[in-house]
Amino acid sequence: MTTSPPDVIRCAYAELVVTDLPASRDFYVGVLGLVVTYEDDEALYLRAFEEYLHHSLVLRKGDLPALAVLAYRVRSAADLDLAEAYYGELGVRVERRAAGATRGIGEAVRVEDPLGFPVEFFHEAEHVERFTQRYDVHGAGALARLDHFNLDTPDVPAARKYYEGLGFRVSEDIQDDEGTVYAAWMFRKPTVHDVALTGGDGPRLHHIAFASHERHQILHICDHLGALRKSGMIERGPGRHGVSNAFYLYLRDPDGHRIELYTHDYYTGDPDNPVITWDVHDNQRRDWWGNPVVPSWYSEASTVLDLDGKPQPLIARSEAHEADVTIGADGFSYTTRQQKEFKLGEQV
Amino acid sequence: MTTSPPDVIRCAYAELVVTDLPASRDFYVGVLGLVVTYEDDEALYLRAFEEYLHHSLVLRKGDLPALAVLAYRVRSAADLDLAEAYYGELGVRVERRAAGATRGIGEAVRVEDPLGFPVEFFHEAEHVERFTQRYDVHGAGALARLDHFNLDTPDVPAARKYYEGLGFRVSEDIQDDEGTVYAAWMFRKPTVHDVALTGGDGPRLHHIAFASHERHQILHICDHLGALRKSGMIERGPGRHGVSNAFYLYLRDPDGHRIELYTHDYYTGDPDNPVITWDVHDNQRRDWWGNPVVPSWYSEASTVLDLDGKPQPLIARSEAHEADVTIGADGFSYTTRQQKEFKLGEQV
Amino acid sequence: MTTSPPDVIRCAYAELVVTDLPASRDFYVGVLGLVVTYEDDEALYLRAFEEYLHHSLVLRKGDLPALAVLAYRVRSAADLDLAEAYYGELGVRVERRAAGATRGIGEAVRVEDPLGFPVEFFHEAEHVERFTQRYDVHGAGALARLDHFNLDTPDVPAARKYYEGLGFRVSEDIQDDEGTVYAAWMFRKPTVHDVALTGGDGPRLHHIAFASHERHQILHICDHLGALRKSGMIERGPGRHGVSNAFYLYLRDPDGHRIELYTHDYYTGDPDNPVITWDVHDNQRRDWWGNPVVPSWYSEASTVLDLDGKPQPLIARSEAHEADVTIGADGFSYTTRQQKEFKLGEQV
Amino acid sequence: MTTSPPDVIRCAYAELVVTDLPASRDFYVGVLGLVVTYEDDEALYLRAFEEYLHHSLVLRKGDLPALAVLAYRVRSAADLDLAEAYYGELGVRVERRAAGATRGIGEAVRVEDPLGFPVEFFHEAEHVERFTQRYDVHGAGALARLDHFNLDTPDVPAARKYYEGLGFRVSEDIQDDEGTVYAAWMFRKPTVHDVALTGGDGPRLHHIAFASHERHQILHICDHLGALRKSGMIERGPGRHGVSNAFYLYLRDPDGHRIELYTHDYYTGDPDNPVITWDVHDNQRRDWWGNPVVPSWYSEASTVLDLDGKPQPLIARSEAHEADVTIGADGFSYTTRQQKEFKLGEQV
Repeated sequence: MTTSPPDVIRCAYAELVVTDLPASRDFYVGVLGLVVTYEDDEALYLRAFEEYLHHSLVLRKGDLPALAVLAYRVRSAADLDLAEAYYGELGVRVERRAAGATRGIGEAVRVEDPLGFPVEFFHEAEHVERFTQRYDVHGAGALARLDHFNLDTPDVPAARKYYEGLGFRVSEDIQDDEGTVYAAWMFRKPTVHDVALTGGDGPRLHHIAFASHERHQILHICDHLGALRKSGMIERGPGRHGVSNAFYLYLRDPDGHRIELYTHDYYTGDPDNPVITWDVHDNQRRDWWGNPVVPSWYSEASTVLDLDGKPQPLIARSEAHEADVTIGADGFSYTTRQQKEFKLGEQV
Repeated sequence: MTTSPPDVIRCAYAELVVTDLPASRDFYVGVLGLVVTYEDDEALYLRAFEEYLHHSLVLRKGDLPALAVLAYRVRSAADLDLAEAYYGELGVRVERRAAGATRGIGEAVRVEDPLGFPVEFFHEAEHVERFTQRYDVHGAGALARLDHFNLDTPDVPAARKYYEGLGFRVSEDIQDDEGTVYAAWMFRKPTVHDVALTGGDGPRLHHIAFASHERHQILHICDHLGALRKSGMIERGPGRHGVSNAFYLYLRDPDGHRIELYTHDYYTGDPDNPVITWDVHDNQRRDWWGNPVVPSWYSEASTVLDLDGKPQPLIARSEAHEADVTIGADGFSYTTRQQKEFKLGEQV
Repeated sequence: MTTSPPDVIRCAYAELVVTDLPASRDFYVGVLGLVVTYEDDEALYLRAFEEYLHHSLVLRKGDLPALAVLAYRVRSAADLDLAEAYYGELGVRVERRAAGATRGIGEAVRVEDPLGFPVEFFHEAEHVERFTQRYDVHGAGALARLDHFNLDTPDVPAARKYYEGLGFRVSEDIQDDEGTVYAAWMFRKPTVHDVALTGGDGPRLHHIAFASHERHQILHICDHLGALRKSGMIERGPGRHGVSNAFYLYLRDPDGHRIELYTHDYYTGDPDNPVITWDVHDNQRRDWWGNPVVPSWYSEASTVLDLDGKPQPLIARSEAHEADVTIGADGFSYTTRQQKEFKLGEQV
Repeated sequence: MTTSPPDVIRCAYAELVVTDLPASRDFYVGVLGLVVTYEDDEALYLRAFEEYLHHSLVLRKGDLPALAVLAYRVRSAADLDLAEAYYGELGVRVERRAAGATRGIGEAVRVEDPLGFPVEFFHEAEHVERFTQRYDVHGAGALARLDHFNLDTPDVPAARKYYEGLGFRVSEDIQDDEGTVYAAWMFRKPTVHDVALTGGDGPRLHHIAFASHERHQILHICDHLGALRKSGMIERGPGRHGVSNAFYLYLRDPDGHRIELYTHDYYTGDPDNPVITWDVHDNQRRDWWGNPVVPSWYSEASTVLDLDGKPQPLIARSEAHEADVTIGADGFSYTTRQQKEFKLGEQV
């Protein structure tokens, strides 16, 4: 590459296609407590309590549940030109979008990135009230801000290399002794990640994550779903990740889009931040408490659209799948290397 | 019955036989943070931070992991005579024990109760320092007090009737539409239970439980076990019970004895405290968040000794087992009655 | 006394006269999150989330802010007759009230007790939905139940003796080396108190207290008041009490009635529960962290009505006031007895 | 200035002179739970649980309690040359230090900055084990990382301008209607601050702050000090700041150095992060709950040494002091502008 990449600040918003806006509103506003910046019959524009840009999540009505776009904020308007040139050199589809093409967002560049995801870069965005201290409207499960995207992609090393080209650095990854890479966590803002790359058939959106301040806020959302008799929306957790050390919960929205609630990861902003590599057979990598990962978490993910709004075809992962090497007949995991190895499912 | 039962205050202590005292000490003192009142080569006498009686748990060295005794405190010394007469009339084995027969405990009456459990009634006990405000020694997972015993017994209605005879009241139970009772929660102190009766082959000890003040203290114990690479000791949870509304975690000690950590149940002390009956097919009864119960939790429990220290033979449950009617081929559960029913495992 | 006292279960509800019902509603419902069982133009009937009796607090519109009644629940209907006889023998005013005289409450006995407080005993009450698991309506500052009343009375030993006659026991008290008693905490349900007796001009209501499960729920109420720009309603705290070990916060409602939010006291239900006596000069007795008590907390309290609704005249405390011996020119306090004593205000 | 400033990543460590190392160890290790990287008879090198550089705090034995140095980490070794040149152009004293001049720290540049503080810039540092997941050694009051320095300086606008020259940006400040600036919060890492500038006689160190993940960890440290009968070390709080929104606690170490414990501020990393200006008369600016600031917090601070280890002379603030305009005879504050103004002390 001869062109400089745009200076990405952080992951900034996602747009999801949902099939039933009122049902989605019940979930994202009623249960997650996201703040409605704007809504009409076609879309909901939502933000978390400490965000002052117009939205960090757009839900747009459509026929097929899908990811419409992932947006990264760049440092300046000039970075849009860099983005246009950079992706031009990469040879992928690039579109310039006028300010307001997405409500609340200024001029932008949209691309179909080399991994097959629809990605937007923008700098300008409308400012709205930051509800950090609006405790009168914070619920028991208050969420502070968007934290990261997690993407299914067949070739993790290739995807990592692409994101390193954009200036992202790796905080943690999962490998095996043969060097197969199952997942990698990469960041621009100094947290564990802005984007995680999960090895799987792709491009698909695995999940987007919002951060809270404390764990009881996440636990409340479990309790709240129980009270609504919607505990089936809880897919996995709550638990503590080995990777990232974050306390987590995975939910499925009414269309099956996966949302993570997340808190307590760590500062990664120094240039020599140590990279942590986890063994795929380490039973505490995905859950520090050794609780099993449910199969759906490995296998299901959201369809991704191209810039014309058509579903991207899937490319199958050719390397081993993490689920296959850790669950079932051929998968051996351990809690301590010194132990006689045991299979998941035999645990206690 | 013509004899009055003793006036039971609450569940007070359990004695467990363990096979490796140092390993047990690592778990109960090192991880759970229980306070050592006394220890020698044969036994450990432990209490939680807000307890001022000599112990709420005795771990005694032996060849076979087992429950040696469950002890209830009675209101006065005179209740010992009542206990002796009451169990005499019940026709079960009764023994009078001198003060100090168990270190720190005064005169006592021990019986093999009609359910086959070794049960002690005592009033006098040695007082030791109450560490309520000794925050200098409270760890991040501080436990406040013993909360309850949970017993496997084949015939829950019969066991309930026996405990009602002793003055216990039911707070909650699990039944099905045919009237089969799968479990009942019964109390003397005004919490959800001092003893839970779980339908299963018995007599066996399902677990004993300690209460903390806040949920983060329980979460820390998960984190601590992860750090020790002993996450395999976490059997089930953390989660929120439907029954009792308590936040819970189930651990297995080095001998496989099950310990629950528990917080946030509710006051039951008024005479008209409403009894809650849960449908065995209600997927949120055991976990309010709908997370599945692991099979071992249903099937495994500790051997119970008779007053001679010999294992009690098991009596098989003849009615349906909760695991069988809620997991697998014939078990249908629901989150809301209105929903098309679904099987556990199909969840999400 | 030749008559047996009624068997009191616990403190059950209070009725306060407030001057501006909508303003009170904003505070008790809007900020504290209490559940409205019933309301009309004259009164609000409120309960906390784990309560199933009709109310634990009545706010009644009136011209003068005052305490109208303190109500204790008794074990059975027969206890009403005992109450009537008992107070008859005590020679105070006694009235029998028909069921429904207070909405939701059955037949009752009201007395002007020997301390000058209007006290009701009732057994029957209307049951309403218990919102324990209605997490869909629990706010971030959810309160679980009424915990206790705190009363200003000039002669604490006399008041203690009176309450001991009613079967209450002391958990903790504050004294000095000369034997002056400044306050005592007394209970029927097995918590630190159902009623606290504070030495001061009386009869006055010092405060009523509601319990939450965790401390963050109390902290949220502080944050919420800050967001409303009503931080002036926070009188004292949050802090940790020395006495009771509870985490606390004192608020003043729109009429100046003091409400405590409270959590983390301890179990007192065993007959030999150790009594803790604090030295009035111990700087950590009122706040374990040594933070000073604000003067208003010592001096201000709510007027108490007689059974005709007229303010009770005050009787001045003749013994030393706690504020006088611990704050200001003549008051010496210490953190450790070994230290050179220092005055409050010189702290740090 | 013609020279580029060094690229500062964040505040990285402080060195304090303490007079009694064992007493300081009791506080910083015994109570705050900081991890000892190295210690000898002359000094203690400490870090918090999520830090992997050799230390974030050095305590060095000396005769006079003082601040010996504040250290900022820079992005690369080349930034040391930039620092040397930059401060050379500023005309202040500059010293190059060899690697190891401070244990665990590589080559460094030390300066007496224009505000009179001894400041070090370093890039290389020894890596040590990051205890993020070492929950076996985390106490109930676990601290995650150094968060910021707070400095007393007489002329806040001048100090702000100096720090802006170094690339710091303002997140919040306190002013009055006449434009007097009382304090400013400035950052490099995307939190509310790496350094706060407080208007006062200076140069003095007001405090250094460590961050925890949750509030209960800070509350535990209060409880712990209470248990040690050292509650006198609690100077102010716990509380919620208006500025920064952080939950806070101020302690005084055995030499009187002030340590803040801090959590829950917000992300500031976007280039258009909104600056919040607080009115000095807003009673919720320093404590969102309106609790008063104790006078010592305004008046006391640590002596600062020059590069020869001699105390820097103080320069008096010529503008109004925040304490003077908000406490006492001439200070008017408000909770809401609409209210009749009231003085602090009259609150409630």
